[in-house]
Amino acid sequence: MTAYFDNSATTKPLPEAVDAVARAMTETWGNPSSLHAVGDAANEQLEAARRTLASAFGCKPQEVYFTAGGTESNNIAVFGTVEALKRRGNRIVTTAVEHPSVEECMKRLEADGFDIVRLPVDTAGRISEEAIFEAVNEKTILVSLMLVNNEVGSIMPVKAAAKALKRAGAPGYLHVDAVQGFGKLPVGPKALGADLISVSSHKVHGPKGVGALFVKKGIRLVSPVLGGGQEDKIRPGTEGTPAIAGFAAAVDKGILHGDLSAHIAHVTEVRDIIRDAALATDIGAVNSGDDALPYILNLSLEGIPSEVLRNYLSEQGVYVSTGSACSKGHRSTVLTQMELDPRRIDSAVRFSFSYTNTVEEARYAAEALTRAANTLRRG
Amino acid sequence: MTAYFDNSATTKPLPEAVDAVARAMTETWGNPSSLHAVGDAANEQLEAARRTLASAFGCKPQEVYFTAGGTESNNIAVFGTVEALKRRGNRIVTTAVEHPSVEECMKRLEADGFDIVRLPVDTAGRISEEAIFEAVNEKTILVSLMLVNNEVGSIMPVKAAAKALKRAGAPGYLHVDAVQGFGKLPVGPKALGADLISVSSHKVHGPKGVGALFVKKGIRLVSPVLGGGQEDKIRPGTEGTPAIAGFAAAVDKGILHGDLSAHIAHVTEVRDIIRDAALATDIGAVNSGDDALPYILNLSLEGIPSEVLRNYLSEQGVYVSTGSACSKGHRSTVLTQMELDPRRIDSAVRFSFSYTNTVEEARYAAEALTRAANTLRRG
Repeated sequence: MTAYFDNSATTKPLPEAVDAVARAMTETWGNPSSLHAVGDAANEQLEAARRTLASAFGCKPQEVYFTAGGTESNNIAVFGTVEALKRRGNRIVTTAVEHPSVEECMKRLEADGFDIVRLPVDTAGRISEEAIFEAVNEKTILVSLMLVNNEVGSIMPVKAAAKALKRAGAPGYLHVDAVQGFGKLPVGPKALGADLISVSSHKVHGPKGVGALFVKKGIRLVSPVLGGGQEDKIRPGTEGTPAIAGFAAAVDKGILHGDLSAHIAHVTEVRDIIRDAALATDIGAVNSGDDALPYILNLSLEGIPSEVLRNYLSEQGVYVSTGSACSKGHRSTVLTQMELDPRRIDSAVRFSFSYTNTVEEARYAAEALTRAANTLRRG
Repeated sequence: MTAYFDNSATTKPLPEAVDAVARAMTETWGNPSSLHAVGDAANEQLEAARRTLASAFGCKPQEVYFTAGGTESNNIAVFGTVEALKRRGNRIVTTAVEHPSVEECMKRLEADGFDIVRLPVDTAGRISEEAIFEAVNEKTILVSLMLVNNEVGSIMPVKAAAKALKRAGAPGYLHVDAVQGFGKLPVGPKALGADLISVSSHKVHGPKGVGALFVKKGIRLVSPVLGGGQEDKIRPGTEGTPAIAGFAAAVDKGILHGDLSAHIAHVTEVRDIIRDAALATDIGAVNSGDDALPYILNLSLEGIPSEVLRNYLSEQGVYVSTGSACSKGHRSTVLTQMELDPRRIDSAVRFSFSYTNTVEEARYAAEALTRAANTLRRG
């Protein structure tokens, strides 16, 4: 038996997504910009995919732009906003625990002289609404927050950021990196109060290499990606129609026709089996907060180094991560910011779930975790 | 019968590419950065794809970076070079007929104060070696040239640019946008003398949404794309492994196991059938030069507007383009720069070929072209 519990790194594509990709390569393989029948067929499929994403967001199809993934969505949102609004202010508010595709942009902007305010997290990886209101001033051109932290599952109060921008009379946009929240929580302009929302296909059982960016109608972005006129110049370059078709198929099946509440209830059951097994050992500790999204469970078997536990579990067919896949080999920023005991940090592993995981997989992993606690600390 | 002659816009994926994409989504679907067995399998497939591209370029695998396509490759090459070398000079040399994914970068750099020299083309869409040597001075930080023009097929003297940089003692890199040359001419650091080479999958019968950038070992780029550590930070973001696998399969079949000389001979035969049919009408004229790459044939049936001819042919199942797919609706920059008679420009259509096109398809299209000349000018 195997149990894949690294769904925040990537998910297994649904069969419907695989089929849609194959069809886009064999039937509607034209260039959507080509003005003949072969191009028209590709363009129709592209626009159908856009309507699917718009349904998921609860927005207009013209507000959905396809990108190469979450990283590109975040880059376009951050740099595109700053280029458009840089004459109207200098402050950017974000958190201390963003994904590198936001944080690295912030570092470059900081070097360029922007005033970057990184909101700190508490011991559960959360930021406070009060801190957002204090940080956002009338010179704020961007607030960029993740919806769900990728390492511990904490949920950020993004709606407060929308209110803070309004209350301060700031010119800024609210960007939400919803990569880890999409398909798990309601994600869209109404649910989040956001002007810009980044999502990724491969976190919701679609193919890797595609994402989307919601851009609220009427707001101005100056994209850092330059080229032809595709995607209204927000994201030039021939659209990656196979992966886009697969993304839409995964969203259609898993989100539009999925029951998010039922999924959360199921995932909570799966999560609890593993959490309880960890806590039943005398070295187990949970690093995720009690109010974290149940899709992510960060835990430590204290004294067993993260890598040792991950490799032991991998040998038994239980796949988890240490930190995020995007920063392999580096000590977790999030856990450090949470000011956890270094012993806890050095033992931390992340279980991340999907609605496709089963209770049997959880029991199997729980047994492996118990064995690990008994075996490895003697090593 | 149908005849798809818009292969410079996009090509139909090979069955091998479709299969490889499906396998990457069903078998090796892990995140290549994940440090467990599922991630390892994905990483092995990613590195195998990199070796395939390296074989095609005649370079080391570590010199191949996967991107989201030709546009992203060009953006990273141009902005990445300028950011790395901007303290060493101010001049950038390019041509007046680059693809928008290079030209739009040049416009932004020009607005930022860089000295952009755009080399003019002659009536066959060619630039002269002398002009390159005159333009490149000791302050030149980048020369960016396309290998094959996407609208008329003219071949640019890129090796002269490498010599010019050396002779001037310039700090600059040579970037070649080889999107339209890859798989048709030898493309690699030795063949082109280039430091950076952009290619795209969907022009060589691979899936859309993926490309590659050759970056010569030892040169420094500061990528405009920011995020995690993937692709040595040249192109952060989870690698689009399905499309990458399909790209490698198409390169393996069509380029590594293809006979480029035999392909050119075949395509020349196909091209000549259509060219001769156009010239046999008394309104036909060829806009591509005699020494253009035979894969691209730009022609005019004078007096018949481009769109009218394109739509007429599309109704008969013959698919060609007016201008490039990337700039739909706009008058061709290239033909304007070639200073063609406006009547010729307004009648121009582009036939673009693949080694997969047949002589029968060419005869069918030739007949349609003859009918068009007889029918449409009466309209």
